[in-house]
Amino acid sequence: MGVVVQNIDRVDLDTVDRLARSGTSTVSEAQGRTGCMKPYMRPVYPGAAIAGNAVTVSVPPADNWMIHVVVEQCQEGDIPVIAPTSGSDAGYFGDLFATALKYRGVRGLIIEAGCRDIAELRNMEFPVWSRYVHGTGTVKETPGSVNIPIVCAGVTVHPGDVIVADDDGVCVVPHAAAAAVRDQAMAREEKEARNRARFAAGELGLDVYGMREQLAEKGLKYI
Amino acid sequence: MGVVVQNIDRVDLDTVDRLARSGTSTVSEAQGRTGCMKPYMRPVYPGAAIAGNAVTVSVPPADNWMIHVVVEQCQEGDIPVIAPTSGSDAGYFGDLFATALKYRGVRGLIIEAGCRDIAELRNMEFPVWSRYVHGTGTVKETPGSVNIPIVCAGVTVHPGDVIVADDDGVCVVPHAAAAAVRDQAMAREEKEARNRARFAAGELGLDVYGMREQLAEKGLKYI
Amino acid sequence: MGVVVQNIDRVDLDTVDRLARSGTSTVSEAQGRTGCMKPYMRPVYPGAAIAGNAVTVSVPPADNWMIHVVVEQCQEGDIPVIAPTSGSDAGYFGDLFATALKYRGVRGLIIEAGCRDIAELRNMEFPVWSRYVHGTGTVKETPGSVNIPIVCAGVTVHPGDVIVADDDGVCVVPHAAAAAVRDQAMAREEKEARNRARFAAGELGLDVYGMREQLAEKGLKYI
Amino acid sequence: MGVVVQNIDRVDLDTVDRLARSGTSTVSEAQGRTGCMKPYMRPVYPGAAIAGNAVTVSVPPADNWMIHVVVEQCQEGDIPVIAPTSGSDAGYFGDLFATALKYRGVRGLIIEAGCRDIAELRNMEFPVWSRYVHGTGTVKETPGSVNIPIVCAGVTVHPGDVIVADDDGVCVVPHAAAAAVRDQAMAREEKEARNRARFAAGELGLDVYGMREQLAEKGLKYI
Amino acid sequence: MGVVVQNIDRVDLDTVDRLARSGTSTVSEAQGRTGCMKPYMRPVYPGAAIAGNAVTVSVPPADNWMIHVVVEQCQEGDIPVIAPTSGSDAGYFGDLFATALKYRGVRGLIIEAGCRDIAELRNMEFPVWSRYVHGTGTVKETPGSVNIPIVCAGVTVHPGDVIVADDDGVCVVPHAAAAAVRDQAMAREEKEARNRARFAAGELGLDVYGMREQLAEKGLKYI
Amino acid sequence: MGVVVQNIDRVDLDTVDRLARSGTSTVSEAQGRTGCMKPYMRPVYPGAAIAGNAVTVSVPPADNWMIHVVVEQCQEGDIPVIAPTSGSDAGYFGDLFATALKYRGVRGLIIEAGCRDIAELRNMEFPVWSRYVHGTGTVKETPGSVNIPIVCAGVTVHPGDVIVADDDGVCVVPHAAAAAVRDQAMAREEKEARNRARFAAGELGLDVYGMREQLAEKGLKYI
Repeated sequence: MGVVVQNIDRVDLDTVDRLARSGTSTVSEAQGRTGCMKPYMRPVYPGAAIAGNAVTVSVPPADNWMIHVVVEQCQEGDIPVIAPTSGSDAGYFGDLFATALKYRGVRGLIIEAGCRDIAELRNMEFPVWSRYVHGTGTVKETPGSVNIPIVCAGVTVHPGDVIVADDDGVCVVPHAAAAAVRDQAMAREEKEARNRARFAAGELGLDVYGMREQLAEKGLKYI
Repeated sequence: MGVVVQNIDRVDLDTVDRLARSGTSTVSEAQGRTGCMKPYMRPVYPGAAIAGNAVTVSVPPADNWMIHVVVEQCQEGDIPVIAPTSGSDAGYFGDLFATALKYRGVRGLIIEAGCRDIAELRNMEFPVWSRYVHGTGTVKETPGSVNIPIVCAGVTVHPGDVIVADDDGVCVVPHAAAAAVRDQAMAREEKEARNRARFAAGELGLDVYGMREQLAEKGLKYI
Repeated sequence: MGVVVQNIDRVDLDTVDRLARSGTSTVSEAQGRTGCMKPYMRPVYPGAAIAGNAVTVSVPPADNWMIHVVVEQCQEGDIPVIAPTSGSDAGYFGDLFATALKYRGVRGLIIEAGCRDIAELRNMEFPVWSRYVHGTGTVKETPGSVNIPIVCAGVTVHPGDVIVADDDGVCVVPHAAAAAVRDQAMAREEKEARNRARFAAGELGLDVYGMREQLAEKGLKYI
Repeated sequence: MGVVVQNIDRVDLDTVDRLARSGTSTVSEAQGRTGCMKPYMRPVYPGAAIAGNAVTVSVPPADNWMIHVVVEQCQEGDIPVIAPTSGSDAGYFGDLFATALKYRGVRGLIIEAGCRDIAELRNMEFPVWSRYVHGTGTVKETPGSVNIPIVCAGVTVHPGDVIVADDDGVCVVPHAAAAAVRDQAMAREEKEARNRARFAAGELGLDVYGMREQLAEKGLKYI
Repeated sequence: MGVVVQNIDRVDLDTVDRLARSGTSTVSEAQGRTGCMKPYMRPVYPGAAIAGNAVTVSVPPADNWMIHVVVEQCQEGDIPVIAPTSGSDAGYFGDLFATALKYRGVRGLIIEAGCRDIAELRNMEFPVWSRYVHGTGTVKETPGSVNIPIVCAGVTVHPGDVIVADDDGVCVVPHAAAAAVRDQAMAREEKEARNRARFAAGELGLDVYGMREQLAEKGLKYI
Repeated sequence: MGVVVQNIDRVDLDTVDRLARSGTSTVSEAQGRTGCMKPYMRPVYPGAAIAGNAVTVSVPPADNWMIHVVVEQCQEGDIPVIAPTSGSDAGYFGDLFATALKYRGVRGLIIEAGCRDIAELRNMEFPVWSRYVHGTGTVKETPGSVNIPIVCAGVTVHPGDVIVADDDGVCVVPHAAAAAVRDQAMAREEKEARNRARFAAGELGLDVYGMREQLAEKGLKYI
């Protein structure tokens, strides 16, 4: 009873790429400290930093059949986001799938379950953020759905939302907010650059942000 | 009341080495998706990929006395596999033991408890897969057993089983199945190489494996 | 109702630096297998090995206001140790704070909660040991306290205790014991160096430590 | 920057009450095995079985100010569903809040964080499903939002969705699907009643559901 | 590719029943502190205390088809023991299956995955020990195996081993050891009854077991 | 190298008993939301509510020898608080020890490890709060210490601190603060009783505590 929604609205890749440069933590701040997946979602190797349009996949536990289906739905700049309908630590994804996705310009993959072939993925530079790394594979028996709203690691993801992923984890930017969040993130970066320079010169946040009085009012005592 | 079984059947190192090249995930598939330890077993540093004959050790919680005993039982190509009789996160194993094991040609170690001296192990290139990394050590008060069947991280391990371990985790190949699994793994690699080439050229798994009709029969709808 | 204790006794940096060279696991052994934090405290990138004087911070959950306060209290060779008053996985600490702390000669940071800006911290070489990595930030609404005794990841930490942190985790040396533990650790290193040489030459721990008789007395049987 | 949406569509209480009688597991099956929260959501005492209209609350970690706000928004047959914006184990909810909610006809509460005053809640017969039980309370410093879509324990919840909760956990029925799911659940109950009688008389599911041939086709062998 | 082994050796029910009276903890002690499953295996309601012959089931993750198969293989005094081939929290088992098993004299069930219909199971007095309680069900697509050796929650279980389960968890007694363990357990109970009387009269374990000297030798100091 | 400190200051039992009536959550609030152990500490059966003077025990992992030692140090109104020096899930404590402790007027026990004989403890009405329930026992090989400061489940406990434990978990009141915390708790109870009556009559916390203006100032909007 699964469905595959074939046409989805994507965010333009200029916006997406700018969000990648801001990174997970800045983007999350820029949208009011929202959008980050639970911290058990970790990159399978360090150092990657990507963004892309979410192609969502709801999969049965320990069944990766739908990943074959989603490959065909992907295009340049996409990131499949995969969540099982009940908990699974099985290794759904490996280097063969990554080869197929890379051909289509896919930038990486997010899965609230297991990933494998880690060494090959590192060599191919195809980054994955997953909950588990596990050699045990899956069956291909039951369909799921592509491009329906899902919950992945604590966050609702709609197809065409922007996914930002790096060493800090994974953040989801709602489709309609992408441009505004990009602008907020850029503004924040400018402010942070100024503050970084002041901190590097020895100034204190207590003074830069004028916090001493407020802390005293809330009762902080120095002894 | 522990016992040390001194003579065990080992798998020849040619077969073992070929299994190492296939790696954890392929070997697990080759034996019907069995044999992988639970995914909380992680390498203490990335990049190692080994196989060897299991020398099993049942240890009391937070007591590493038996590791001194097992060193003497090890030979070229062995991998000690250690499980505590109740849960322990203590640091049983470090670089001194690794020095002694390396002298004997041991390739690495598997422990469902804690490991320490991680930086030294990385420098020595002696890989360990463990459940925990922990500086707190153990006592040496109570014997355990060497080369009896144990359960380590969800898998029964007999002495002389083949252990395959890499960035995807740890997989156990039963002694009697080693040659057949090696052949299955090699056959799988050939098939995967062919498919990898097709995927790299843009073909889809849906077509390569002829899945479209089956998915439609199971009710998958495209919208 | 928080307090900031401004004057604390620190351990001289010669002693501190010598403890850093011994490392977490040796230091823990040297003080009777005590002082290590729970193993969920992990470095946000591998390879750092530091020691410093603890500046303790008790923080409200998901509120990092006090980190601005603690910066001012830090000096050369310090390591802030931060614990929330109930569980939090929020990202309290990032590269801006690290910039400010680095200016003051702070060597790293320990937090039983979340850290972010991991890639930047690695580039800056400012190491953090944390329970979580998480892009979601915090508020600045409620004061906490600086330089009161806290419990961080299972260990009581007083201001001016020595913190030793490396790839094996984090170990706390009580202020008054620092010199004695340093001496014990050095003695242990000498002994270990001698034993390492013997193990590297093929001797067995069973013989080096004379354990065979004891094991037999406790009932170990060879078959 | 929080918002309180005051007018929400609720499902009629006849439908809600019928769903309560079906219970979490049957309701989940009736809507295609969807809607159940993660299994770490447990009742604080056994035996309660309720359903109600979701009034959603997004709260800051370890800050229960918004629970005062949500009380006013509740009416007969409601169930507040509360999720923190990052992980928290603090005790947000206790018997005083339960007293206020009970006055308004609220049937219970769902929170992906901590609850306390368990003994009193049991005495009052006000059931709570929570991730943690914890005596440590919270602050009241930062607003959140009421009646916006949230994710609680892995499931998206909109205001006016039906919550079904009992010893099997918590299940969410989308507002628009409530009547249809009720009918599906009732149909399922009838079928299950018939099958229960057959099983109680010794018939086998293999025969009742005609599974023997299918299993043989899929390769099951009897030895 | 699953198999169903139809003939297994069972332990006589007199022995089994006597082991049930001893209970999990005493039985584990009687066989040298072995056999207990990991402590995450908990009864779905308190107070049950059973023993029976293990009928083992290896199941795919989130697929309960094989439970229909195992019903037919069960007889008076049996306890199915079920483990998935990779991690699953799905609700495999509920009251319909329990009805069918009860008809055949089955005493309870052990599953390293999810159970549901807890309230009904409590009413029926059909006890289950599981890792999870979860309303989300499973598919019926892939065969597994019945009566092959499995690992369940850290313990190898062979068909015909005795399972003892109560509020302390689950313990496995190897088939061949059942009579000897029963005798050991009874001997232990007698000794414990004598000691219980002495403790109830105010005697100290230090004196009853003559431990004072040994403790002093090991360095214990009274201040 | 363990020590047993034999003379400790206890809090008078009138104060202790009054704290028991207030309960864990109220007592924690009364001392500024401090003192609660981590929420993984759970009663082995529901309904008990006690307080007593802490007799602390530092134990080796999976070694319960020191529990024999601590029995002798206990008197009317005491509660042993036990923490292992590294993680252990072993069953340290059961009904024989409970018999000996009950004779001496001990009210219950706190252990950050495993407990067993749950059914018997419930029958005896000897409550235990533990991290695990586990049938697997321990050895008696290595001394620990009695009545030294320990950390148990995230809280520093000194001998003679007051332990309050009930269905909400475990809270530690520092010895010197006991009388003041009792008074604060009583004052809080009076205030809560007044507020409970107002909530039961339909008043809102928003009005009772005058929160509307503050929430508006912090930006909360009603739609």
